[in-house]
Amino acid sequence: MLINDNFLLKTETARRLYHSYAENLPIIDYHCHIPPRDIAEDKRFSDITEVWLGGDHYKWRLIRMTGAPESEITGDCDPKTKFLRFAEALPQAIGNPMYHWTHLELKRYFGCDLTLNPENAEEIYSLCNNALKRDDMSARGIIRRSNVRMIGTTDDPTDSLEWHEKIAEDKTFETLVLPSFRPDNALNIDKPGFADYIKKLGDVSDTDVSNISGIKKALSLRLEFFAKHGCRAADHGLDRAVFSPATDNEADEILKKALSGKPISREEADKYITVMLLHCGREYSRLGIVMQLHYNCQRRVNSRYTEMLGADTGFDCIRTNDGGSAVTGLLNALDCENALPKTVLYSLNPADNELLDSVAGSFPGEDGFMKVQHGAAWWFNDTKSGMEAQLKSFANLLPLGQFIGMLTDSRSLLSYTRHEYFRRIFCNLLGEWVENGEYPADENSLKKIVEGVCCKNAMRFFGIE
Amino acid sequence: MLINDNFLLKTETARRLYHSYAENLPIIDYHCHIPPRDIAEDKRFSDITEVWLGGDHYKWRLIRMTGAPESEITGDCDPKTKFLRFAEALPQAIGNPMYHWTHLELKRYFGCDLTLNPENAEEIYSLCNNALKRDDMSARGIIRRSNVRMIGTTDDPTDSLEWHEKIAEDKTFETLVLPSFRPDNALNIDKPGFADYIKKLGDVSDTDVSNISGIKKALSLRLEFFAKHGCRAADHGLDRAVFSPATDNEADEILKKALSGKPISREEADKYITVMLLHCGREYSRLGIVMQLHYNCQRRVNSRYTEMLGADTGFDCIRTNDGGSAVTGLLNALDCENALPKTVLYSLNPADNELLDSVAGSFPGEDGFMKVQHGAAWWFNDTKSGMEAQLKSFANLLPLGQFIGMLTDSRSLLSYTRHEYFRRIFCNLLGEWVENGEYPADENSLKKIVEGVCCKNAMRFFGIE
Amino acid sequence: MLINDNFLLKTETARRLYHSYAENLPIIDYHCHIPPRDIAEDKRFSDITEVWLGGDHYKWRLIRMTGAPESEITGDCDPKTKFLRFAEALPQAIGNPMYHWTHLELKRYFGCDLTLNPENAEEIYSLCNNALKRDDMSARGIIRRSNVRMIGTTDDPTDSLEWHEKIAEDKTFETLVLPSFRPDNALNIDKPGFADYIKKLGDVSDTDVSNISGIKKALSLRLEFFAKHGCRAADHGLDRAVFSPATDNEADEILKKALSGKPISREEADKYITVMLLHCGREYSRLGIVMQLHYNCQRRVNSRYTEMLGADTGFDCIRTNDGGSAVTGLLNALDCENALPKTVLYSLNPADNELLDSVAGSFPGEDGFMKVQHGAAWWFNDTKSGMEAQLKSFANLLPLGQFIGMLTDSRSLLSYTRHEYFRRIFCNLLGEWVENGEYPADENSLKKIVEGVCCKNAMRFFGIE
Repeated sequence: MLINDNFLLKTETARRLYHSYAENLPIIDYHCHIPPRDIAEDKRFSDITEVWLGGDHYKWRLIRMTGAPESEITGDCDPKTKFLRFAEALPQAIGNPMYHWTHLELKRYFGCDLTLNPENAEEIYSLCNNALKRDDMSARGIIRRSNVRMIGTTDDPTDSLEWHEKIAEDKTFETLVLPSFRPDNALNIDKPGFADYIKKLGDVSDTDVSNISGIKKALSLRLEFFAKHGCRAADHGLDRAVFSPATDNEADEILKKALSGKPISREEADKYITVMLLHCGREYSRLGIVMQLHYNCQRRVNSRYTEMLGADTGFDCIRTNDGGSAVTGLLNALDCENALPKTVLYSLNPADNELLDSVAGSFPGEDGFMKVQHGAAWWFNDTKSGMEAQLKSFANLLPLGQFIGMLTDSRSLLSYTRHEYFRRIFCNLLGEWVENGEYPADENSLKKIVEGVCCKNAMRFFGIE
Repeated sequence: MLINDNFLLKTETARRLYHSYAENLPIIDYHCHIPPRDIAEDKRFSDITEVWLGGDHYKWRLIRMTGAPESEITGDCDPKTKFLRFAEALPQAIGNPMYHWTHLELKRYFGCDLTLNPENAEEIYSLCNNALKRDDMSARGIIRRSNVRMIGTTDDPTDSLEWHEKIAEDKTFETLVLPSFRPDNALNIDKPGFADYIKKLGDVSDTDVSNISGIKKALSLRLEFFAKHGCRAADHGLDRAVFSPATDNEADEILKKALSGKPISREEADKYITVMLLHCGREYSRLGIVMQLHYNCQRRVNSRYTEMLGADTGFDCIRTNDGGSAVTGLLNALDCENALPKTVLYSLNPADNELLDSVAGSFPGEDGFMKVQHGAAWWFNDTKSGMEAQLKSFANLLPLGQFIGMLTDSRSLLSYTRHEYFRRIFCNLLGEWVENGEYPADENSLKKIVEGVCCKNAMRFFGIE
Repeated sequence: MLINDNFLLKTETARRLYHSYAENLPIIDYHCHIPPRDIAEDKRFSDITEVWLGGDHYKWRLIRMTGAPESEITGDCDPKTKFLRFAEALPQAIGNPMYHWTHLELKRYFGCDLTLNPENAEEIYSLCNNALKRDDMSARGIIRRSNVRMIGTTDDPTDSLEWHEKIAEDKTFETLVLPSFRPDNALNIDKPGFADYIKKLGDVSDTDVSNISGIKKALSLRLEFFAKHGCRAADHGLDRAVFSPATDNEADEILKKALSGKPISREEADKYITVMLLHCGREYSRLGIVMQLHYNCQRRVNSRYTEMLGADTGFDCIRTNDGGSAVTGLLNALDCENALPKTVLYSLNPADNELLDSVAGSFPGEDGFMKVQHGAAWWFNDTKSGMEAQLKSFANLLPLGQFIGMLTDSRSLLSYTRHEYFRRIFCNLLGEWVENGEYPADENSLKKIVEGVCCKNAMRFFGIE
């Protein structure tokens, strides 16, 4: 049985730490991509293909590597064939986190102990589809049985937050579902659709957005609106880290060019983005909102498929590691104004791990807590060895007991098992250190570290309860 | 005994997988630097110094680090003294793959169980020299006893392929020896000798090469000639990954400058190289030839020694990791024309591992198979931990069962033991995963993965049999 | 008991190697930041806070991450409160080298077996303060009981070396305390205070420093003065590796701009720095002095705190990995003039490990010894896993038996235990290789490797005895 009590827990200490302290802690999923509407409407799923393969570009990429036709991956082929394609790909993915995610999900949500392969795929397909008919397999049912205390969704500043309102009004649902502010569309001045988006932002905020101060005002109004709805975090998806300080006048000139449809150079874009990042940072600081920065991503590198399928369909990759001085420049500029918000840094390039931990260590904590965090291993690094590398780098350069821990970053409701995956890997690492004699078997300290990293630090950092 | 049955195989599973499935598979050595003439003429070796130290810049570097005079490394000193210098250096190389390669070769080809050191060096020297007199220690003998199914050599487009023809004509030799197309000389527009080389290319192909379309035509003619001789793969050794699209007219201007002996800027070189890479890529796609791209190398960084000894003598090193967006730009440009050939990406900088796996995952497979591969750990990464890092990164981001596996990249006929080295390390990694409970002990799936990665995937990828 | 005989030594072989060969070797601490005055005056410490927290920015950073107020870290708060803050932070630092350093120091210098935490902090505070009253806990006492054969301090070219003279004159103190030449202030043409510093350099050397040849002469005079006082090593702290060759005339123009207070561009600074680095390198070669190059550091990234506390107070971080070709360009330029000194390369970015080992391997050794070394894991990499990564990379690409080993790079006299930490980690790595069957249990070779790396190679490299 792959998923047994001691899955990934190699030492006695690891087992004790996981089962005594980590296993039953509530989940603080402060960064995910679940549509709030699915929760508000308590969505149900017709089959395992919908819930597993409906929007999961990780799985699509894996299947594509085995040369299956796109029609049987994201196309209009029947659900069972798509499931079978996945069942053919999965056994080849030895050492891949998807192998573990998949079987954790089969076990925890479907009670299935089989390891998926082409031979048993039909059996598992039926078993899962039957399970999905159970009452507790709706969106809210899944969230409840996963013991989720808080969900941070990802939302555009122009969003009405109507679904968040509906969820909040329903007092029978105890999980906090809070919006996160993701103003990428307002910053991506050199990408198609920018002018249209800015118009929309002006409309929604009832603000003149023909100049920089107008856009700043519009974003501030929307952020205040988000804050009223419980927003605890903002997020910036930056392809590359930028810090090119410019005056508002310079930025105004660049904005005018962009709004009139003229092409924007990389240097101009960097200046505009820097001006807006600094504005947003100040506002996050003022309103007590956490700033997340994700960078070093090459997006949509495959034009043919992107044209066919759109963005976020599995054609992004890691960027050469770059931008260390832009990250420090940005944080320092805000800090010099006493306007550095709590911050979480994520690079898609794992060669940046140590750099980011050394950056975090250069900005002192406040109120008994770290202020700049190196975020959990992100996307392509969200693997057993990727998480271990991030944790070891964090531990080497910072007090690991201060880490805010895991998030799912997922579009799927079944991904809460990624918290279990992280907790097992984390406890296993601690167990290894203790049993190697690198840290004393001091139960009190270990309990605090486990509870902090697996739940309590995030609660405190994001102001939950 | 260092090289015993279970060398590097730490678990029962690893041992079973290696001995049951990997050990006896034929070798597909799709990328090496063995002179085809040596095979055609069934070369014999006068002494172990010739076969070990005659052309192996890995060993030269190691000996140089111990401060031995160059005359006793590559100079005209007697063979025994050179061998003794190596015997002095080797015991200091704990943790170095050369320690393992050396003893695998001593064991497999010379039946020697001793570990080489200054004390027993003379004994081993005699023992090896005697062994070299055996009938089965000619070039073909070594290849035969190594169970090599296919050898892909490395050949200049102007090569007559006469030795390949001779080998192919001899039906008593069952190993396929196929040319690989390596047009670096036609692309290195900013390096000395370019104009002379282009003249030679024109002569050999009987084509006017005074302009871009002529060079393209000449390369296409030569590639077709190579294809007729069984060529399955091309290779580009790029110091840095480049993608600077330009028109043929622009490239023509740059070419004219170069042919008239004027200096070429880096930007100009990048444009010319990009134009030629795109042309080559299209042609590989048309003719079903695999494109290999090697990059992030600093070549000949030591001018004094390069002047003394020439290129490829042990004075190259890793380049700062760079060029991620050039790699994706190039692949995408070809893919947009439906002209992306099967591709293998190699960076000399191990910090690029995850980037390359994420790039490979952005280009879907075809015909039931991955199309863009992250190649085996290359050169300075061809070490136990370097291979493990490449395999883990591949496994984290792609289905490892699809990997095309190992090559020797070697100038030496004794290097086939590097396939054994890889297979042991690979089976050990799988064994570790299985015994850690990270993959089920599913013999059927494991057998498929082992046979695929150690042999069958490469056969399929390169169209062998 | 955390610090027991077998701390970090997981195998029998590791234990044997450490206790038989490594443990009692004298320490060659060829690179540290201890003020020679403290040794000359045989300084005593009033309390553990002074000796532990008085100048240690590693510890300050850790405490800052827990959100303690700066007044209780570097401020004028009482010593005991500062100690308690550290005691609160330390248990959170699981996996951090400071956890090990701290307890090695408690054990070796204070005979304390407790693991520090808030509960026992007062007890340990008293215990340590009492111990500091012992006769053998003066600066020289600590050095003596640490079995230190040689200390290389870090000194400005304008330094009078009076304290080194005093130490040398006192024949009752057997440890060599030798100055190291660190001319950063003369190279940092684009940093504040440059013109003033150059004036001082001119005064001290009684040389006209209004032009490049004057500055060169002044540095040469000071270097000769240092050499007369036993200087064995020089050190350059370069934020980034630079190699922008320029003529002396060009450099003269840039110098004049700088001396007249005009701003210097990055390109200009790079040219000036390159001219001076080449001059220094030639002089090191002439005088037999080792050149150390440290790079890829972002210094003082937090302006607010730097303004409050000055440089070297814990606000530096890693730079994006960069500069590989500048490093090779610089070494090659010197080598082409037969003026490459013995060199040690250090990058603050661990993603550069393999690059630096491949660079070292491109410059042959001399007199039976490696000439260009990849230095011990530096600063943020001076951790268990950081050292293991540096050692494995070195081993993969070079003969590890040639490595010159560890240094403290520390401002604290208690840091000699970092040599113990390194030796244990090193022997543990060798033990693992031997017991995994990757290297034979050849006691003679292993003894040579251990003694070489832990002591004898550095003695030879720096010409001690």
